[in-house]
Amino acid sequence: MEKEQVCEMLRRVREAKPLVHNITNTVVTNFTANGLLALGASPVMASAPEEAADMAKIASSLVLNIGTLNAQTVESMILAGKSANLHGVPVIFDPVGAGATRFRTESAQKIMSEVKVSVIRGNAAEIANVVGDKWEIKGVDAGAAEGDVLALSMKAACKLNCIVVITGKEDVATDGSIAYVVANGDQLLTKVTGTGCLLTSVIGAFAGVEKDVLKASAAALTFYGVAAEKAVKKTNGQGPGSFQIEFLNQLSIVTDEDLNRMCSFEIVR
Amino acid sequence: MEKEQVCEMLRRVREAKPLVHNITNTVVTNFTANGLLALGASPVMASAPEEAADMAKIASSLVLNIGTLNAQTVESMILAGKSANLHGVPVIFDPVGAGATRFRTESAQKIMSEVKVSVIRGNAAEIANVVGDKWEIKGVDAGAAEGDVLALSMKAACKLNCIVVITGKEDVATDGSIAYVVANGDQLLTKVTGTGCLLTSVIGAFAGVEKDVLKASAAALTFYGVAAEKAVKKTNGQGPGSFQIEFLNQLSIVTDEDLNRMCSFEIVR
Amino acid sequence: MEKEQVCEMLRRVREAKPLVHNITNTVVTNFTANGLLALGASPVMASAPEEAADMAKIASSLVLNIGTLNAQTVESMILAGKSANLHGVPVIFDPVGAGATRFRTESAQKIMSEVKVSVIRGNAAEIANVVGDKWEIKGVDAGAAEGDVLALSMKAACKLNCIVVITGKEDVATDGSIAYVVANGDQLLTKVTGTGCLLTSVIGAFAGVEKDVLKASAAALTFYGVAAEKAVKKTNGQGPGSFQIEFLNQLSIVTDEDLNRMCSFEIVR
Repeated sequence: MEKEQVCEMLRRVREAKPLVHNITNTVVTNFTANGLLALGASPVMASAPEEAADMAKIASSLVLNIGTLNAQTVESMILAGKSANLHGVPVIFDPVGAGATRFRTESAQKIMSEVKVSVIRGNAAEIANVVGDKWEIKGVDAGAAEGDVLALSMKAACKLNCIVVITGKEDVATDGSIAYVVANGDQLLTKVTGTGCLLTSVIGAFAGVEKDVLKASAAALTFYGVAAEKAVKKTNGQGPGSFQIEFLNQLSIVTDEDLNRMCSFEIVR
Repeated sequence: MEKEQVCEMLRRVREAKPLVHNITNTVVTNFTANGLLALGASPVMASAPEEAADMAKIASSLVLNIGTLNAQTVESMILAGKSANLHGVPVIFDPVGAGATRFRTESAQKIMSEVKVSVIRGNAAEIANVVGDKWEIKGVDAGAAEGDVLALSMKAACKLNCIVVITGKEDVATDGSIAYVVANGDQLLTKVTGTGCLLTSVIGAFAGVEKDVLKASAAALTFYGVAAEKAVKKTNGQGPGSFQIEFLNQLSIVTDEDLNRMCSFEIVR
Repeated sequence: MEKEQVCEMLRRVREAKPLVHNITNTVVTNFTANGLLALGASPVMASAPEEAADMAKIASSLVLNIGTLNAQTVESMILAGKSANLHGVPVIFDPVGAGATRFRTESAQKIMSEVKVSVIRGNAAEIANVVGDKWEIKGVDAGAAEGDVLALSMKAACKLNCIVVITGKEDVATDGSIAYVVANGDQLLTKVTGTGCLLTSVIGAFAGVEKDVLKASAAALTFYGVAAEKAVKKTNGQGPGSFQIEFLNQLSIVTDEDLNRMCSFEIVR
């Protein structure tokens, strides 16, 4: 993938305004919807079992996020996921807090077993727990990443048979044979709740306009990281409140020029 | 209605601080509460069936919004709605996404049939779907409005026997015989989630202090549009994040002078 | 308690990053998580009965908030509360709107009877209703505080056998014999939804690093009030939107120097 492809995909998102159906947690619904709108996508939230399948089939992508899961939303996720599978709609899965409680780990594994997921996005601890490895997790935040994230992502992609995106100091997107290692982003993202969740939905927006979901994931990661870096620079030390607002601004105004100048990723085989 | 009446109603909201009971979607609860507080109203959210009726009867108005409906919240909406009807509390209804799924369309129609609604507020597609017309809808956003919005609103008001407010490029509020066509507002409102939902709640605040709900609706529309225009001007191109925050500021600080200078509506009979 | 102890506790929060488990209302989840992150704590939300107890036992503190309670979340609160009690995790309780509906009052009293609560935080009306006194409440906001708040807090602490924090024009934290009366804070906090709820969670963060929960509560109150005062000064009249964002900034950047200069509390015996 060249930088130009990132620009081109972003243009397609802004033109096509893909409908991203999110079944997500109650902490981040607002931020996710505003982030998708800022980017140029069209968010919809619909989590009732009575309508989850109907909404998923008309969407460009489906994003499932277990951040505040309960029995009913897990049921809706599976209904929506099966509907998306049937209609060729890519499914992006965010196993928030997998490993923190048995209910989360089991629900994440259940969703992975019943729905064909195109991309799974989490921190190292979450992905490790989904594939059955042990990795320290503290609440919903990854523990100190002492392991080899690239190796973990490769292994997980093979085992789960989907694109795996692991975010942390560096972000990795891989199909198990090729990996994009993305250096863009900033530590300040960890001081705003839902930035990981929104990233998952932004991958959904890119996957809604680009069939090569590995490239879509890598492009979303770089775009997202560039927006964060610009927001950090603009709000220079003001604090996480100002950063959050400027980040929404930047999702809307990042240009081709910004991407060409700032994109930083390498391809590992 | 004269511009002075808009000012006068806004003053009454800020003095009386009407208690607006919202049963609304999980995406916009925070923004709705903050918008109502900024305006000077007193928001409360209470959606459990065990307390919905009790809270509705002590409120100045009740706002029902099906943005993330489920079977239980629909039950609560009907319980609260009947309680509001019994105690003379005006009910404002926002049929978010009616037409997008069968569950939404049917739930919207069920609420309309079991509760006496004073005002229904939606985009053209939502209102059309509530009255049984076909109108393209994409997720929860109106499709390209090719039809005649004024005619639709008039027809809907007659059929539904309540005030109909349709928002879009122009906003219309009508009882089926007189229509207020409001030019205030800005396209940037569509880049922030929940601005339609918050408008519905702001109509609730105005209806909580003014018995003529058509005038209350028209006044709320113009006030809301003026606040948006001021926020656009102040944040001039910074992006939707900054606009959202400045919009909350403006809901709090719009003055009589702003309204007298900027209000733009006409009355059509 | 000396001012230096407030600084010292804040340092401990920022270093230890205590995991604060919140079962809270859908209006404030995002603001609560962002406020805790800004402060330096580590928030987690988990409200399903299947995992509430598991998450509570690994947390540094548990915060229960009935702002948008329903039968299931009350069940989860009790499960989480009992688990916290068993594992020595302090429980902080926010009885939002107690007195406004029978369901709220009874749920608050049920939680107090089944869970050993370390700190209860509310406005005067809420605390009065929990202890069975009558006090006017309007929705979830305290009515005009005509009673004697200090006397109420002392009485409630004795009757409930826990630390009682009542917030209003002045804030009080007491164990029934010693009371901290805190003058820090600003009226503008009442124009942003969830500032009371977030305060309860901030008390949770402090109680997560300090076993003397009365001192932890008093320190949290003063810190929170100082952050608010700095945010008011910085955003000087811009409105509640800007204040909200700057308040998040200040939770992150308040320094020892700020605290030593601005802390204002007295101890009453």
